[in-house]
Amino acid sequence: MKKFVNDPKNFVPEMLKGIALANPTTLKYIPDYNLIMRADIPLANKVSIMQGSGSGHEPAHVMTVGKGMLDAACPGNVFAAPPADFVYQTTKLVASPMGVLHLLNNYTGDTMSFDMGKELAQADGIEVQTVVIDDDVAVKDSLYTVGRRGVAGNFFVMKACGAASEEGATLDELVGIGNHVVDVTRTMGMALTGCTPPGKGSPIFTLEDDEMEMGIGIHGEPGRKRVKIEPANKIVEELFEAVSSDLPYKAGDEVALMINGMGGTPISELYLLYAHAHELCEQKGLKIKRNYVGEYCTSLEMAGFSLTLVKLDEKLEKLLAAPAEIAIRVF
Amino acid sequence: MKKFVNDPKNFVPEMLKGIALANPTTLKYIPDYNLIMRADIPLANKVSIMQGSGSGHEPAHVMTVGKGMLDAACPGNVFAAPPADFVYQTTKLVASPMGVLHLLNNYTGDTMSFDMGKELAQADGIEVQTVVIDDDVAVKDSLYTVGRRGVAGNFFVMKACGAASEEGATLDELVGIGNHVVDVTRTMGMALTGCTPPGKGSPIFTLEDDEMEMGIGIHGEPGRKRVKIEPANKIVEELFEAVSSDLPYKAGDEVALMINGMGGTPISELYLLYAHAHELCEQKGLKIKRNYVGEYCTSLEMAGFSLTLVKLDEKLEKLLAAPAEIAIRVF
Repeated sequence: MKKFVNDPKNFVPEMLKGIALANPTTLKYIPDYNLIMRADIPLANKVSIMQGSGSGHEPAHVMTVGKGMLDAACPGNVFAAPPADFVYQTTKLVASPMGVLHLLNNYTGDTMSFDMGKELAQADGIEVQTVVIDDDVAVKDSLYTVGRRGVAGNFFVMKACGAASEEGATLDELVGIGNHVVDVTRTMGMALTGCTPPGKGSPIFTLEDDEMEMGIGIHGEPGRKRVKIEPANKIVEELFEAVSSDLPYKAGDEVALMINGMGGTPISELYLLYAHAHELCEQKGLKIKRNYVGEYCTSLEMAGFSLTLVKLDEKLEKLLAAPAEIAIRVF
Repeated sequence: MKKFVNDPKNFVPEMLKGIALANPTTLKYIPDYNLIMRADIPLANKVSIMQGSGSGHEPAHVMTVGKGMLDAACPGNVFAAPPADFVYQTTKLVASPMGVLHLLNNYTGDTMSFDMGKELAQADGIEVQTVVIDDDVAVKDSLYTVGRRGVAGNFFVMKACGAASEEGATLDELVGIGNHVVDVTRTMGMALTGCTPPGKGSPIFTLEDDEMEMGIGIHGEPGRKRVKIEPANKIVEELFEAVSSDLPYKAGDEVALMINGMGGTPISELYLLYAHAHELCEQKGLKIKRNYVGEYCTSLEMAGFSLTLVKLDEKLEKLLAAPAEIAIRVF
């Protein structure tokens, strides 16, 4: 296994320790619940926002904790939902008098844990609401999901809700904002290679040297089809068509465009892909108001990418443009 | 070849187009010289700073052009030095009355191009000086280098000189700052896998399933040794020892610590590696004033990382902390 690992059982805790050590003043790490949380919360005048999911999708979600984004993340092991107890304990620790917002990518395991964690917290008198993210247009129902899967579009929900919560939005308002972002966000991804969870030690799936999988899930769930590798622009065109036909656009619409790397794709290739996605938006008359090129929601070292389009309005654009401070940063 | 590419010959231009399209107001792209430059330079009251090198190391250097970092980058093809004419034309285009600073990683091909480009520009009356970066402690003399190689420590030279130039530092002062950063910066890297340049279509080198190469160069140049894969912490310890013994430290010294991904290593693993590097600094009594975890200088999709230590003083720390705006960003 060509990975940097000590004991595979400790992969997640050792990563979390690194995040905490690199952000000693802003983040707090509570090993008992795989919990990375802002050091300064809960705040009386701000709804707390938390997310969980399996690990292996970093920077989502443990590296996107910080002012203006998530207040806490309590991941499970690699590609495994967090236990309900992590969700419950985290909800208690971050509980603000204004309430707690659970953000949740649509996978059956995560849904079960978050439903149970929420019930337990509500029994303690904590106000909790949930926004479920299902931006992946590739398939309806999947290996681990009823309905659509939640993938990289997740970033926009965290960013918009995080910004609004800093401005004092109520829990009901945040649910409205989160659901609106889900309504206007569409993603589809693809892979050139599989990836290897440290605890498994072998790839979750394999593709032949000349094959790719279109519509792949972020845990290697099957997509729409397995086909011969195409030139980069053809791949972009197919993802763009899938995404932009699922939520129709008209000339003049304003959008955010994201090219998200799956973990093993060099950023040079992501910018090459971005170039053509940008051209396709222009051909359709779409105005790109914000763009994102990099890794936002990955599958370990998978080579692949996803394309996300978000239909913007003035309010959402402002929330996306608001400042935020998280673990991943350049300077 | 499992890469996102259209025509391999156009790999670099298509990437550069993506960078330009994603940064339409701040960057300018001049295809004739593979040139990405700040849209607002040259400025009369600021030395212009430029860098070249082969492509394939992104974000270095074309994605680190922006206010507070580089003013321009004119890369060659993947792993190939830019032609002297690119250097000359770029130097002319960015020439400020305060002069032009060439930053140069120490490779023979780059040195030749930059020397020639500098001479041509000087003949035109442009004041040009050069700082050569050679932070890699792995080997002395190498496949493409006389002396030591320049690798991820490069980032700190760009950042410090970029910040000082924004404050109005003269060309002589910037040369002093750049050379000081080189003096206090040491790096060593290693790889678990090779990588495939798009134009070549096959890996530049291969490692067996259980092998790694310690001290690897960023173009796959041989390092110190090829050995069986070790646990992550052992690898970190070996790199840390190599780096921290080359420039000795004493308890209480202040440092910047960087874990740089080589392109194909997931950020989860980089943080796991950071955790142990941080602990080793603490064991030695070093105070980590700034830390960097991510991709700064890569080798396409190579799985591997490098560890950099920079000995800080108050002035350098301030320059590293100054704001900057470049293509790669999260929000």
